[in-house]
Amino acid sequence: MKKYYIGVDLGGTNIAIGITDEEFNIIAKGSVPTLAQRGGEAIVHDMAELAKKLCSDNGIAKDEIAGVGIASPGTVNPGTGIIEYANNIKFKDFPITKLFSEEFGIEASKIAIGNDANLAALGEYVAGAAKGAGSSAMLTLGTGVGGGVIIDGKVLTGAHFGGAELGHIVVEYGGRPCTCGRRGCLEAYCSATALIRLAREKYEEYPDSVMHQLCKSADEINGKTPFDAKKMGDKAGTEVVDTYISYLACGIGNVVNIFQPDVILIGGGVCNQKDYLLLPLIEKVEEEVYGNLKTKIAIASLGNDAGIIGAAALSRGN
Amino acid sequence: MKKYYIGVDLGGTNIAIGITDEEFNIIAKGSVPTLAQRGGEAIVHDMAELAKKLCSDNGIAKDEIAGVGIASPGTVNPGTGIIEYANNIKFKDFPITKLFSEEFGIEASKIAIGNDANLAALGEYVAGAAKGAGSSAMLTLGTGVGGGVIIDGKVLTGAHFGGAELGHIVVEYGGRPCTCGRRGCLEAYCSATALIRLAREKYEEYPDSVMHQLCKSADEINGKTPFDAKKMGDKAGTEVVDTYISYLACGIGNVVNIFQPDVILIGGGVCNQKDYLLLPLIEKVEEEVYGNLKTKIAIASLGNDAGIIGAAALSRGN
Repeated sequence: MKKYYIGVDLGGTNIAIGITDEEFNIIAKGSVPTLAQRGGEAIVHDMAELAKKLCSDNGIAKDEIAGVGIASPGTVNPGTGIIEYANNIKFKDFPITKLFSEEFGIEASKIAIGNDANLAALGEYVAGAAKGAGSSAMLTLGTGVGGGVIIDGKVLTGAHFGGAELGHIVVEYGGRPCTCGRRGCLEAYCSATALIRLAREKYEEYPDSVMHQLCKSADEINGKTPFDAKKMGDKAGTEVVDTYISYLACGIGNVVNIFQPDVILIGGGVCNQKDYLLLPLIEKVEEEVYGNLKTKIAIASLGNDAGIIGAAALSRGN
Repeated sequence: MKKYYIGVDLGGTNIAIGITDEEFNIIAKGSVPTLAQRGGEAIVHDMAELAKKLCSDNGIAKDEIAGVGIASPGTVNPGTGIIEYANNIKFKDFPITKLFSEEFGIEASKIAIGNDANLAALGEYVAGAAKGAGSSAMLTLGTGVGGGVIIDGKVLTGAHFGGAELGHIVVEYGGRPCTCGRRGCLEAYCSATALIRLAREKYEEYPDSVMHQLCKSADEINGKTPFDAKKMGDKAGTEVVDTYISYLACGIGNVVNIFQPDVILIGGGVCNQKDYLLLPLIEKVEEEVYGNLKTKIAIASLGNDAGIIGAAALSRGN
């Protein structure tokens, strides 16, 4: 009998679900809006309905499902199957495993849950840019900076499931305020949000910057703007990009010294800049670490599928 | 038949060796000077002679030795049994396992080697202040800041055996130069060396400081001086201690966010200040982390025996 895994990526905006084969290739995929404000029961109901539909559309019987993994934001307790706290979907002590088990009709023991940033790292580890590595770390540069660490195939969760918060390592004592309440976290310098904020500051500071031709107002600036400006030789754009990359190199140098993983991946929208981001980044990380840099630094390859695949892999036992 | 373990702590100044029972109680202990400049063969010879003497003095036969662990500074490859690089004992690609095996007369397969800071953390985990924890991290505040992390009973080494360098996490981007070549590492603010340097700076800055009564010149200042001055209500001493503890809290906050271990231990001479260091430190760490601090922060309990015991435990298979 063939075996399949279901991976659920529960986001603040959408619920994305994929069915994978045993090699974690996605063979079917769909999504529905989360509509977070309506509460957990309705969300889990939609989640189970979509999973059922994907199974029936693809002729997969329930007993061919070897496991279901759910990636959630926030603090997730894999032992109890409870999402302890997830701010952006308004969950608090929500028994998602129990409810999904009932709605979908599968033993709770086949359901695994984990934090979304951790499971994105796991997805890349089993089927993406970190495939074949012994250990890996991933930084997702988005609204915030998410972190995930995989050591010998296992997700690092910490004793209370809040570990691997690589975005909340202070890199500048007393520095910029962070959403977490600390000052100077990597997230405050290396999220896409921080990149855009810095670009807007330089936009105001340099009235002759090319960024004024690219964008009529500071509000129009996005993460691509300073990179485009730098390519055109713009001083302000160059300052923004170089500062951003310097902080990111500092953060990645820290991750090398802490974990010395085989691979460190960066993901998120900023990575669309590809080699314009990656090559100067690697150069700066090499300056940051002792001796030769043995850790490979690369861009994540699975995009939004990483969470689905990581959730599926978690349900297999990673 | 009783089983014993031998733990060797190879330091820059002394080689300390202990024999432990299966519960890692030290039942015999001794030391000889390292005399690092004489080279590896002579060092290993003395190491083996001391181990033999401890065995014979205590009536322990060689076949009762279940394992030998060696804690070394530097980069240590447990797979090959080679110390790849250790600056302060001048070792480079030194096959310590093979040589000790021959000198002492024991199968190489019974010998385990590891980094000294990592094994001090393991010692505290199996028999010291972190005993009973699922995961722990340790920072040793000495000449530098050593780091060790234990997850589920295993030492975190990283892919190339240079992991868990918690002293070399940058906490102040572009900050004070560190011995490792980076700027702003935790070690540059929280080693005993950094504490003394800061005290000397404040000594010069404040001619009316109590520190001038305690020490005739800045050279006489040690790690205890600013704590003594603070206890006497001295402004300069208070500034030194509070600054030191603030940086340490920042570093420990980082370790909480990265690993969320059950326990974080601090060791090294600075910890002689006990509650004068620990209590304000815990208070500041509580301000640094999200929600309630679930990680216990405590002072290491084994002192110089931690490396011996950790080495012994490594040879058992931790």
